[in-house]
Amino acid sequence: MTKEFIFKVKVYYEDTDAGGIVYYANYLKFLERARTELIYELNLNHKILKEKYDTYIIVRSCNIQYKKPGFFEDYLNIYTRLIDYTSSQIVVNQEIKRKKDLIVTAKVQLVTVNNKGKPIKMPNILINQLKLINSIID
Amino acid sequence: MTKEFIFKVKVYYEDTDAGGIVYYANYLKFLERARTELIYELNLNHKILKEKYDTYIIVRSCNIQYKKPGFFEDYLNIYTRLIDYTSSQIVVNQEIKRKKDLIVTAKVQLVTVNNKGKPIKMPNILINQLKLINSIID
Amino acid sequence: MTKEFIFKVKVYYEDTDAGGIVYYANYLKFLERARTELIYELNLNHKILKEKYDTYIIVRSCNIQYKKPGFFEDYLNIYTRLIDYTSSQIVVNQEIKRKKDLIVTAKVQLVTVNNKGKPIKMPNILINQLKLINSIID
Amino acid sequence: MTKEFIFKVKVYYEDTDAGGIVYYANYLKFLERARTELIYELNLNHKILKEKYDTYIIVRSCNIQYKKPGFFEDYLNIYTRLIDYTSSQIVVNQEIKRKKDLIVTAKVQLVTVNNKGKPIKMPNILINQLKLINSIID
Repeated sequence: MTKEFIFKVKVYYEDTDAGGIVYYANYLKFLERARTELIYELNLNHKILKEKYDTYIIVRSCNIQYKKPGFFEDYLNIYTRLIDYTSSQIVVNQEIKRKKDLIVTAKVQLVTVNNKGKPIKMPNILINQLKLINSIID
Repeated sequence: MTKEFIFKVKVYYEDTDAGGIVYYANYLKFLERARTELIYELNLNHKILKEKYDTYIIVRSCNIQYKKPGFFEDYLNIYTRLIDYTSSQIVVNQEIKRKKDLIVTAKVQLVTVNNKGKPIKMPNILINQLKLINSIID
Repeated sequence: MTKEFIFKVKVYYEDTDAGGIVYYANYLKFLERARTELIYELNLNHKILKEKYDTYIIVRSCNIQYKKPGFFEDYLNIYTRLIDYTSSQIVVNQEIKRKKDLIVTAKVQLVTVNNKGKPIKMPNILINQLKLINSIID
Repeated sequence: MTKEFIFKVKVYYEDTDAGGIVYYANYLKFLERARTELIYELNLNHKILKEKYDTYIIVRSCNIQYKKPGFFEDYLNIYTRLIDYTSSQIVVNQEIKRKKDLIVTAKVQLVTVNNKGKPIKMPNILINQLKLINSIID
């Protein structure tokens, strides 16, 4: 089992809709913020990946379940867990919770492309960092 | 096979990100616009459903694949097809295309809830309209 | 007095917030959509400006008044009127209305920059098109 | 001179556009997050204001200047300063900076309305808190 990363968000007006709850697309913003922070935990960032490795991490697929609504002014925790990676893709499970309440679960598949959008192998530095996460926890 | 509804969107600055492409969460906005217009095709709207039937249609799950990037100033077509419905849920397949290019596919599961967020059976008027779509096409 | 351009938008869930009304930042999206369509009316688009003229039109200032709320499922009209231009800036007045009701007024100042963000003179093709709008109406 | 409140934001993909910079409407989200946190500093929140006082704080006008672009992965500070208040409105000046660089300045006028959108006097608890901010600093 791999390490789990936790990232906190707060629900502002911008995140809600006229139904009084978090708009369904906006959870994908929260999920991406958490994945971006995970990249930082790996001592990388998007600027380095782009400028040194001509590498962009993009989402290939996202399977998201909406379990309970999130509300305005909620404090939410996002749990991100690496469940698989190869040289060409990363798969993470993400959960959004309000205290114990499960709000959203998502399985997100990420791939790396160059500046022309062509799929490429991940740079070694990224793979090595991912290995490190795994080895720590196994 | 059921009828397919087509809805057009144009990609504005607001829809893109620093990668120069449509931001992955924003496709969910496009998909919802198309589903909202489909509700209108059924001679319903969210205000009627809310005020006359205390019914809100919410997304329970969304399984989305990103096939190719969408770009700033693209004209995109969204194809929505009803693939299943019962008294408690609707399932649609949606595709976003730029001419022949497939950009996104998504399978979206919708359920109806009341103003307390409790799952409820769909009002008959909604079910009858869905039947009508199917019968026309079968 | 110069010609007025009209652009229509519809308020979807994504545009609203938990107050049940259009979120205040989202009107700026509507205003930009209308200005983008105005660029098209001038037989230009952002891609041409960027690729042929290394020119980006950016907002320098925006003075916006919120008169009445816009609601979910509203149909809104955006009226855009050129009120001043020089070789280095364009100023437009924009109004958002629901039928006769004035929802928003805004005065927006636009300037042109190159790909490094440095202010540049507008390409002649843009100035000439702006002149044309004025001469038609005067 | 009144106290200045500082709030930090980080620029994620969702905040940027295809120009590679923060999308102009998204700064209004940052500004509102900072104002919301200021409400919290006053020992209030939107839920209390709504449920106990039938009071919503809405933006009446916003005069915003864009000085320099904000970029993906920037850390920005938002400085909010109360410059005027009466029983019917609050005016704040807000600045967004990246270290010493001034990115955005804005003057924002806020008013209070009830659940029907009718302008109302602010509840005493809000006015008293605003007085407190001023008296501390004078």
